[in-house]
Amino acid sequence: MAALCIQTPFKPLTFPPHTNTNPKPKPTIIRCSTKASISNPPLALDPHPQYSSVVSFAPASVANLGPGFDFLGCAVSGLGDTVTLRIDHQVPPGHLSISSVSTRHLSTNPLFNCAGIAAISAMRRLRVRSHGLSLSLHKGLPLGSGLGSSAASAAAAAVAVNALFGDRLSASELILAGLDSEAKVSGYHADNIAPAIMGGFVLIRSYDPLELIELKFPEEKELFFVLVSPEFEVPTKKMRAALPAEVGMKEHVWNCSQAGGLVAAVLLGDVEGLGKALSADRIVEPRRAPLIPGMEGVKRAAIEAGAFGCTISGAGPTAVAVTDEEEKGVRIGESMVEAFWREGMLKASAAVQRLDRVGARVVSRSP
Amino acid sequence: MAALCIQTPFKPLTFPPHTNTNPKPKPTIIRCSTKASISNPPLALDPHPQYSSVVSFAPASVANLGPGFDFLGCAVSGLGDTVTLRIDHQVPPGHLSISSVSTRHLSTNPLFNCAGIAAISAMRRLRVRSHGLSLSLHKGLPLGSGLGSSAASAAAAAVAVNALFGDRLSASELILAGLDSEAKVSGYHADNIAPAIMGGFVLIRSYDPLELIELKFPEEKELFFVLVSPEFEVPTKKMRAALPAEVGMKEHVWNCSQAGGLVAAVLLGDVEGLGKALSADRIVEPRRAPLIPGMEGVKRAAIEAGAFGCTISGAGPTAVAVTDEEEKGVRIGESMVEAFWREGMLKASAAVQRLDRVGARVVSRSP
Repeated sequence: MAALCIQTPFKPLTFPPHTNTNPKPKPTIIRCSTKASISNPPLALDPHPQYSSVVSFAPASVANLGPGFDFLGCAVSGLGDTVTLRIDHQVPPGHLSISSVSTRHLSTNPLFNCAGIAAISAMRRLRVRSHGLSLSLHKGLPLGSGLGSSAASAAAAAVAVNALFGDRLSASELILAGLDSEAKVSGYHADNIAPAIMGGFVLIRSYDPLELIELKFPEEKELFFVLVSPEFEVPTKKMRAALPAEVGMKEHVWNCSQAGGLVAAVLLGDVEGLGKALSADRIVEPRRAPLIPGMEGVKRAAIEAGAFGCTISGAGPTAVAVTDEEEKGVRIGESMVEAFWREGMLKASAAVQRLDRVGARVVSRSP
Repeated sequence: MAALCIQTPFKPLTFPPHTNTNPKPKPTIIRCSTKASISNPPLALDPHPQYSSVVSFAPASVANLGPGFDFLGCAVSGLGDTVTLRIDHQVPPGHLSISSVSTRHLSTNPLFNCAGIAAISAMRRLRVRSHGLSLSLHKGLPLGSGLGSSAASAAAAAVAVNALFGDRLSASELILAGLDSEAKVSGYHADNIAPAIMGGFVLIRSYDPLELIELKFPEEKELFFVLVSPEFEVPTKKMRAALPAEVGMKEHVWNCSQAGGLVAAVLLGDVEGLGKALSADRIVEPRRAPLIPGMEGVKRAAIEAGAFGCTISGAGPTAVAVTDEEEKGVRIGESMVEAFWREGMLKASAAVQRLDRVGARVVSRSP
């Protein structure tokens, strides 16, 4: 029996009501306040559902892009989570139930499930009061792989709630809903949830107010991510503990310049420069890589096989390399899988994926 | 009587001979090795002069752009240094003499003069052996103002030498010549000399090899720099000593994200975002601003007057603010001048300038 979630009293919204009927506006720079503000009184929306059910999908994402640590992420195609959300008259109005989750490693209590928390936050933001919802989560992403698994669930859920009620929330509000989930699960970081919702590359400029910069990788350029996931559970606490409290001024300037180079490479569509920047982190990766058996050798193998750059995806253990040709990507992936086995005694699997430029989206609607 | 400089033995060049006849190629990303390499044997150029004399100009530049500390700079219009260079049969072949300098604060010994050092380095790179040169430097930039005064002299000199002999050196080689000068005068930093030579915004990705990324601010967008220079001599050593040896991880991530935001703002032509990023440095400016009387108040005054952002130009004491309208720039400048007087008891002068997109150039040639 799925647990029900009783919503806490509505928090005031910080946004004016949205009249935009686009499913997901995509401005270059979006700004919003993460603080509740009494100057913006709560909206009495309680919107009417437009559909009886919707199915949504949100892609995997790669955060901590080398020198882009903690503020830059991108969405990748092929992998992701799927949410089915429906109006459920068995569920008390204004409440959410999780009817099924495809893995038993995740709770069906909405308060302890990424998708549940984000869905509830989106319901709050929309002031859904008169309808109960039932959510089913299909995990396409492995847990704890460094590919933004929790963010994908949250993004798919928030987008599903929004679509069910006529797409009244902006991308910013959807991201804030997702952030409510991320904060409880993996920390208040938007570098997975923002690209999972917006697609492409997203830079998190600030959190209060939340300001995001969409970095458009040129449409005409090819970019492939080689994602190699070893069978290894990363001790997340250890990964966080590996971060230094302080950074030498020289390393700071170096990483800052590489972060600038990374942003330039994305906007200019310079895959070689992007790879170079990815590989150039002197602060986080050198401390984290030794905690993933074979990672340093995997990076070397990727570069030797022709990758423009390679680093740890998120907090690992997935390694991510970049290239501009799919076939080359396959060969690079093979080399990296071999290196994980040879140097880390870890079995691993490789996938070559494109940039996901769309982000979380509705894949079907039932009237 | 101007001092003569006897050149030390030629160092091997690291470049292949240039067949490019463009005066200054402007690639998006330029790479070159800063190390002498025996695999690239010295070139026996000793080129023939194309002119009897040339006059060159190089613009002021703003480095340490907030979170762009030590790796990002841009050239600004209106102000700059002028070099007149001529074939002088009174000067021994392969040698350089400085015939005049417009300020008595600078040496006429080419080995102790920014223009002289850069000119000699350019002569070496060209293998000028059969002609003696005479250089005259007119300083349009005040010394020690934080506007890249030494870089402007070096850039103008290197470009003049190159032009006199038919523009055989690439932009990278000119920058390396300028770097030889900067290294002796203000440290091995290219964030003034690169924009002084290339124009626009330039990101220094690495020094060995030297890799520069030209960040094109969109042609159709307006960008104005409000440069306010107080009558105050900055104790350079004190400014460098104010830098922390280490930086907290949180500040590091913040500044990195602002550096990324700054680069994005430049490439997207987002003047507001550019200003915001300029203002957002939490590492260098907070430690240096208190050493310039009134600087914190000047920054506040600039923002209150409508500037999108404000920071210290270079190592100061000039304050730089940005806006998208010239008239607004004039008002902002007045407010900043007033604030320097009110809060720092310093007289100051303001200038509103555009981005210089061209960089160092020849302004006249005599056959």
